[in-house]
Amino acid sequence: MEMKDMVIISVDDHISEPPDMFKNHLSGEALETAPKLLKDENGKDVWHYQGQTFASVALNAVVGRPFEEYGMEPTSLDQLREGVYDVHERVKDMDVNGVAASLNFGSVFDFAGGRLHRVPDKKLATTHISAYNDWHIDEWCGAYPGRFIPCAILPTWDMAATIAELKRVSDKGCHTISISENPTCQGLPSIHNAYWDPFYKAVNDLDMTICLHIGGGNPAPHASMETPIEAWISTMPMSIAYAASDWLQLEALHTFPDMRIALSEGSIGWVPYFTERADFSNSRHKYWTNSRFQNLKPSEMFKRHFLNCFIDDAFGLQNIQFIGEDNIAYECDYPHSDTLWPEVPEHLWPTINHLTDAQIDKITHGNAMRWFRFDPFQHYRREELTVGALREKAKAAGVDTSPKSSLGERPLAEGDVRPVTSGDIMKMFMRHEDAEQKQDA
Amino acid sequence: MEMKDMVIISVDDHISEPPDMFKNHLSGEALETAPKLLKDENGKDVWHYQGQTFASVALNAVVGRPFEEYGMEPTSLDQLREGVYDVHERVKDMDVNGVAASLNFGSVFDFAGGRLHRVPDKKLATTHISAYNDWHIDEWCGAYPGRFIPCAILPTWDMAATIAELKRVSDKGCHTISISENPTCQGLPSIHNAYWDPFYKAVNDLDMTICLHIGGGNPAPHASMETPIEAWISTMPMSIAYAASDWLQLEALHTFPDMRIALSEGSIGWVPYFTERADFSNSRHKYWTNSRFQNLKPSEMFKRHFLNCFIDDAFGLQNIQFIGEDNIAYECDYPHSDTLWPEVPEHLWPTINHLTDAQIDKITHGNAMRWFRFDPFQHYRREELTVGALREKAKAAGVDTSPKSSLGERPLAEGDVRPVTSGDIMKMFMRHEDAEQKQDA
Repeated sequence: MEMKDMVIISVDDHISEPPDMFKNHLSGEALETAPKLLKDENGKDVWHYQGQTFASVALNAVVGRPFEEYGMEPTSLDQLREGVYDVHERVKDMDVNGVAASLNFGSVFDFAGGRLHRVPDKKLATTHISAYNDWHIDEWCGAYPGRFIPCAILPTWDMAATIAELKRVSDKGCHTISISENPTCQGLPSIHNAYWDPFYKAVNDLDMTICLHIGGGNPAPHASMETPIEAWISTMPMSIAYAASDWLQLEALHTFPDMRIALSEGSIGWVPYFTERADFSNSRHKYWTNSRFQNLKPSEMFKRHFLNCFIDDAFGLQNIQFIGEDNIAYECDYPHSDTLWPEVPEHLWPTINHLTDAQIDKITHGNAMRWFRFDPFQHYRREELTVGALREKAKAAGVDTSPKSSLGERPLAEGDVRPVTSGDIMKMFMRHEDAEQKQDA
Repeated sequence: MEMKDMVIISVDDHISEPPDMFKNHLSGEALETAPKLLKDENGKDVWHYQGQTFASVALNAVVGRPFEEYGMEPTSLDQLREGVYDVHERVKDMDVNGVAASLNFGSVFDFAGGRLHRVPDKKLATTHISAYNDWHIDEWCGAYPGRFIPCAILPTWDMAATIAELKRVSDKGCHTISISENPTCQGLPSIHNAYWDPFYKAVNDLDMTICLHIGGGNPAPHASMETPIEAWISTMPMSIAYAASDWLQLEALHTFPDMRIALSEGSIGWVPYFTERADFSNSRHKYWTNSRFQNLKPSEMFKRHFLNCFIDDAFGLQNIQFIGEDNIAYECDYPHSDTLWPEVPEHLWPTINHLTDAQIDKITHGNAMRWFRFDPFQHYRREELTVGALREKAKAAGVDTSPKSSLGERPLAEGDVRPVTSGDIMKMFMRHEDAEQKQDA
């Protein structure tokens, strides 16, 4: 195999939704009360919903910018590449990057619907979640069958509504849902509580896959407000380990041996240590803890149930025998700052070309297909979805990937020479998300 | 080399101090007001100090028990192996385990003196820290020169007193200090604050080593009170990564290229991922963050300043080229539940015997000697400190290592069949540490 022969499915990208997202999926009162994207007095796009405001764009949606203009500042759609909010432009950006298919998380309600736990009218929120899912599944993913893995969100504060929505999106052909990795952060019972039993059963009965995306519940720890932001950024993916450890102890994994959980944006290089340590702890503590792991080891359970997802992880890919070649999937993270767009193939290939063709196929797309019950080859022949074929198409379409300056200035003052801190970013974030933060306080 | 030829230095063990620890180091009022170890109405040993009570023994000091009696329950010295609090018995336990030398953290004031940040009379606490250090350095470590690496604690709430104590213990031959990995958890300024500048300078001028032990500041995250305790136990060591990421950004590392920081009980298998990720984040963000890493990479800085310490870490030891063979040291964690006493050589040898003799020497003792400025060979010839030689000595002394039942019952009720949770342990801990917890609330 050569670089151009890879078929790449990315299991983690993002959308900043366009202002007209609800118009084809709601009418009357429900449309009137849906989130509205409005420019504020500073020219920032802000979603208004149930008396609250949400930042309009995925913070850090910096794809296509010069590195000097990275940061938390893009705050309106016109500062972003069109592919961030327009599916037709998105597909072109996938083509030029050699990405055959993509799973997209939303922004308006957060990766896992987290923002809706704070709004006052939960019935209304349930209606708008369904409309979001309809837009996401039918309008965004439906525009290019075989190019997108649909991923729904759920009104998890209402278990009956959650089960109903699971069935509804399943009937529409959506086999993946995104929920918070730690619902106690949203005031709900923990994942070990009987509250979630109907959810686990329905996910199993409907053969669906659960995505736990970093930042969807547990805050990624940062030591202090004076901690340089690079310290915080670099430990964010690995923070999913606490959720992984929690979910690994779930009783439902013993009840439902086919349950599938993707640790979205969790990265992979720490996984061999994590599972070795879980086995070690179990071997020494299972005698007094009433552990569920008396015969099966935690590491075996981890391989049976968890998909590990990476953006750029050379060390992890040197050690796939400790992770499982059936447990690893690629992700692009377009349009966030980690994304290697438009040069994903150039970065990915050197980190996997020591593997066999069969292993490369699994990691680039085969595992994604199996874990997410998704088959692009129902719509395309393999040779149409390779890096080489997609880039030929992009070339013919004239996709421009040159860095675009959209901000015109550094996000921080010129005179500022100390490193940007976690506190700086928290303050910036709070300016964007005033109502949201006030509600939290 | 064979297993019996290893010389093992452990850079992380623990002491539960005996009741008479202060009597040779204080007199009069200072002795009268020192912590007192008293049995409570339930037969538990509790330290009383400045109106507060502290659990007497390192919770989880379970060495030498049957696995069935592990847990958080040992609460008095008579439930423990004598080696936990008696230095003469400790040296026998080291001998039988083939451990040549050991760095011990204290319990009465916490690994890093954390408990003293809550007591009302800080001047008095400063006096008692000095007495603790005198006992630790002169009486415990001094009893067997060449067998212990002394490690002092500091009154970090008072920078002048901290600098004075650093100089005082340095004059006594102590070259290592233990502080909280995140002083903001104790109400002090962050490590990036100018408050700490005199400390970094003194540590550099005195050529001392800083230990950051897990649990000394940042709480190890656990998802919920219903999370089985095994989930929490297994992620505790890796939680040091947040401190590592924070300290890696420290300006003082650029000012003092010889500063040495040990990540005590942090383990090693996650480190290659961590440093690769730090470089990746830096490469994409340094243009807008005023990063201190413009030329030097974070991974290079990490190797220059951080010692990584492991108990049982086969995967990490397969990958030492990514960590640095000069950056890894062994730890035994006697008497805590992770300890592999009395079979450390049997567990350690298979995980390192693929390495060269020179690498094995570095990891088993050479790195510990260099990072902690400690030289047991001033007191013993190498052939006196090997696993084989020490075990011969223990055999002659008749050290008994057979598991001792000291509790007589399971820590949890017989009828309880669900896994022990984080909440169960928190409740148990709060019963032991009533005053401490009330003070926190």
